[in-house]
Amino acid sequence: MEEQVEMVGRAFVDHYYHLFDNDRSSLSSLYQPSSILTFEGQNIQGVEDISTKLNQLPFDQCQHEISTVDSQLSATTGGIMVFVSGSLRVSGEHHSLRFSQMFHLIPTLQGTLFVQNDIFRLNYG
Amino acid sequence: MEEQVEMVGRAFVDHYYHLFDNDRSSLSSLYQPSSILTFEGQNIQGVEDISTKLNQLPFDQCQHEISTVDSQLSATTGGIMVFVSGSLRVSGEHHSLRFSQMFHLIPTLQGTLFVQNDIFRLNYG
Repeated sequence: MEEQVEMVGRAFVDHYYHLFDNDRSSLSSLYQPSSILTFEGQNIQGVEDISTKLNQLPFDQCQHEISTVDSQLSATTGGIMVFVSGSLRVSGEHHSLRFSQMFHLIPTLQGTLFVQNDIFRLNYG
Repeated sequence: MEEQVEMVGRAFVDHYYHLFDNDRSSLSSLYQPSSILTFEGQNIQGVEDISTKLNQLPFDQCQHEISTVDSQLSATTGGIMVFVSGSLRVSGEHHSLRFSQMFHLIPTLQGTLFVQNDIFRLNYG
């Protein structure tokens, strides 16, 4: 069970950052109207506003490199908690930035997972 | 609502790290048999094993300094997601270590919150 949870968490993470780095506008497919994103302390709710926020981030391209992925079963929702650390390089910048991000993934009625909770923070040294 | 969630999240964080730094053995009161802790990639389940892990960390004293606390409502559980970043200084060490930690807090039948999910990572620069 634990292994399955880890596999699903890692597959989600690969998918999420692949979309983020290559086709950011399609990230909206992973959210639902109830989803909440807290991005560097700013709360944003719902697919449309989250999608707008992600698409309007002030860089054209970026590349995420994942350092750690920790996944746990979410007892009461049948979902999964995923905690990610890594670094992020933005087009035109030489330095990469460390970040941490957590996702609470919940199954849809169709059995796929969507992002209910998403919290993102850059890690300042 | 959002403000309430933030207040509860911050109150929990203050309480948690106060216990951690001053009376670590009493952290066990915040967990339940279903709780899961992932500590630097190691999965630990249940009050007893989590308590043992926290009490056997290889330092006598430590001091947490909190940088950011982000809290969100957890849709289906009536609980709260809390995401913390900060730094940690261990007794006998001059340098502090950056860390990130997330908690999924769920209400008990008595209406208090317990830690269902807990994921901790040190942030290596």
